[in-house]
Amino acid sequence: MFDLGSYLASRRERIDNALNEILKDSPTPNRIIDAMKYSLMAGGKRIRPILCMAAAEAVGGKVENALTAACALEMIHTYSLIHDDLPAMDDDVLRRGKPTCHVAFDEATAILAGDALLTLAFELLSFHENIDPVHASKWLRIISRIAAAAGYKGLVGGQMRDITSEGRGLSMDELESMHTLKTGALIEASISSGAILGGGTPGQVKHLEIYGKNIGLAFQVTDDILNVEGDPAIMGKAVGTDKNRNKTTYPSIMGLENAREFAKKLINDALQALDYSDIRSDPFRAIALYIVERKR
Amino acid sequence: MFDLGSYLASRRERIDNALNEILKDSPTPNRIIDAMKYSLMAGGKRIRPILCMAAAEAVGGKVENALTAACALEMIHTYSLIHDDLPAMDDDVLRRGKPTCHVAFDEATAILAGDALLTLAFELLSFHENIDPVHASKWLRIISRIAAAAGYKGLVGGQMRDITSEGRGLSMDELESMHTLKTGALIEASISSGAILGGGTPGQVKHLEIYGKNIGLAFQVTDDILNVEGDPAIMGKAVGTDKNRNKTTYPSIMGLENAREFAKKLINDALQALDYSDIRSDPFRAIALYIVERKR
Repeated sequence: MFDLGSYLASRRERIDNALNEILKDSPTPNRIIDAMKYSLMAGGKRIRPILCMAAAEAVGGKVENALTAACALEMIHTYSLIHDDLPAMDDDVLRRGKPTCHVAFDEATAILAGDALLTLAFELLSFHENIDPVHASKWLRIISRIAAAAGYKGLVGGQMRDITSEGRGLSMDELESMHTLKTGALIEASISSGAILGGGTPGQVKHLEIYGKNIGLAFQVTDDILNVEGDPAIMGKAVGTDKNRNKTTYPSIMGLENAREFAKKLINDALQALDYSDIRSDPFRAIALYIVERKR
Repeated sequence: MFDLGSYLASRRERIDNALNEILKDSPTPNRIIDAMKYSLMAGGKRIRPILCMAAAEAVGGKVENALTAACALEMIHTYSLIHDDLPAMDDDVLRRGKPTCHVAFDEATAILAGDALLTLAFELLSFHENIDPVHASKWLRIISRIAAAAGYKGLVGGQMRDITSEGRGLSMDELESMHTLKTGALIEASISSGAILGGGTPGQVKHLEIYGKNIGLAFQVTDDILNVEGDPAIMGKAVGTDKNRNKTTYPSIMGLENAREFAKKLINDALQALDYSDIRSDPFRAIALYIVERKR
C-alpha cells in the first residue's frame, strides 16, 4: 500500500534541504536574499518539484537527476506568487498563513525578490561543471521548455488574462485556456523536464505530459472549489475572494457540483495516461487523487 | 577612419529588425505583448547588444553568431528598466522621452511585461533546433553567465542596494560595487557572451571582459554626470533627479571635475585591454570614447 503522506513529507524535506543549500552562502545580512528565502521557505506544498522528481523516477531515473530542475521550478513558482500578491496585482496580504512578501518587506523588495528568484532558476538550470555535450543538449531543451511555460506563452500570459478578465464573464473556453497558461503549462513542464532528465522515452514523456495537463487543470478547478467552501484556518488564506472580485471560476460558471464532477473526470483522464508502458505510477496515482481531495 | 555614427546606426537597425521579428507572431490584440513591444522598441541605445555583436566580430566571428544573445540581452536590459521605473521603485514617468510602461499601460501590466521579457530572454538563449552538442555546451555557459549577471549577484542585487542606499551617504567603495552589480555585470556578460559565440580564445575573452568592466563603470559615471549637467531636451528625461533624491553619485562624492577625470581614466584602462593579440578593436575604441562624450 503506497503511503502518500510519508512520500510527500520525505520529498518536501528533500527539496527544502536542497533549496536551503542553494541560498546558504549569502553574504552577511542581505535584504534581497532574506526576501527570497522568506517566500521560498514559507511552507509551500512543493507540488511542482515533487512532480518533477516523481517523473524522473517514474521512467526509471533517480531523484538526484531531477533535483536541480525541481529547485528551479519551485523558484519560478514562488516568484510568480510574490508578483501575483503585489498591490498592483491581486493585492493579497496573506499567503500560506504568513504575511506576503511585500507586507513582510516592502513592494520594491518583493518585486526584486521575484525577479531574482526567476533569474536564479535559469542560473541553476544552466550551471553545470564539466558537463558532457549530450547532457548539455538535454539541459538546453529543458530550459527552453521551462522558459516557454513561464513566459508570455504560459504563466505570465495566464496571469495577464486573469487580471484583465476580472469583472467580466469568461466563457468556459476562455477560462480553461487561462488556467492552462497560468497553472497548467508550468506543471506540464515540471513533469516533462523530470521525465527527460530521468531518461524517459519520447512516448513516456508524452504520456506523462498528458497526465500533467489533466492534473494541472484539476488542481485549478479544486482551487476554485476551495475558494468557495474551504476552511480559511486550514488553508492559511482568505476564502470567498474570487466571488468578491467577480472572478469567473469553475463553480461560478458550472456550479459547485458540476465543478467537482469535472475535477474527477480530469483526474480519471490523468490516471488513464499512466497506463502507458513501463511508467512506475504509484506516486502519480496517489498525487492525482490528493489533488482533488485536498483541503488546502 | 572608423565612422562610429553609421556603425551604430546600422547595428541598431540590425538589432531592431531582429527584435521586431521575434515578437511579430503575436496573436491578435494582446496586452502583454503590446506592453513588451512598447518598451522594447522605445528607442533604446542598444548598447548591450551592440557590444555583444562587436565582441563576436572582434575575435573573428560574425554578427550572426551573436544576434540571438544580443536580442536576449536587450530584453533583460529593457525588463530591468520597466521594473526600475515602477512607482514602488524609482517612480519615473518618462523614459527616452516617452511615458514609462506603467504610465502607458498600468502597473500590473508593466510588472508582467518585465517578467515576460526576462523569461523570453532565456527562452531565446536556450531554443536551438538541431544544435550540435559542442555548441550546446557553449550556450549553457552563456546562459549561466547572463543569468548570474542579471540576478541577485548582479543587476537585481545592484538595484536593491541602489534603493536601500537612497538618503544615506555611500562610500566610494560601496558606490563602485553597487554600479558594478547594477550596470557592469550585464555589460561584461554582453561582451563575454559575444566573444565566446564568436569563437574567441580564453585570453581574448578575458581581455574583452576587462574592457567591459571599465566601460561599464565609465558609462555609469557619465550617467551621473549627465544627471547633473545634461540637457533634458536631448536626454528625453529629467535631470537633477539624483540630487533631489539625495543619491550618492560620483559627482556628489568626488566633484564634477574629478568624476570627469575618473571616467577618462576608466576609458584609458579599457582601451589598454584592447591591445591584446588579434582583437579587432576599431568599434570598441570608438564606443569607449562615445561613452564618455555622449550627451544622452
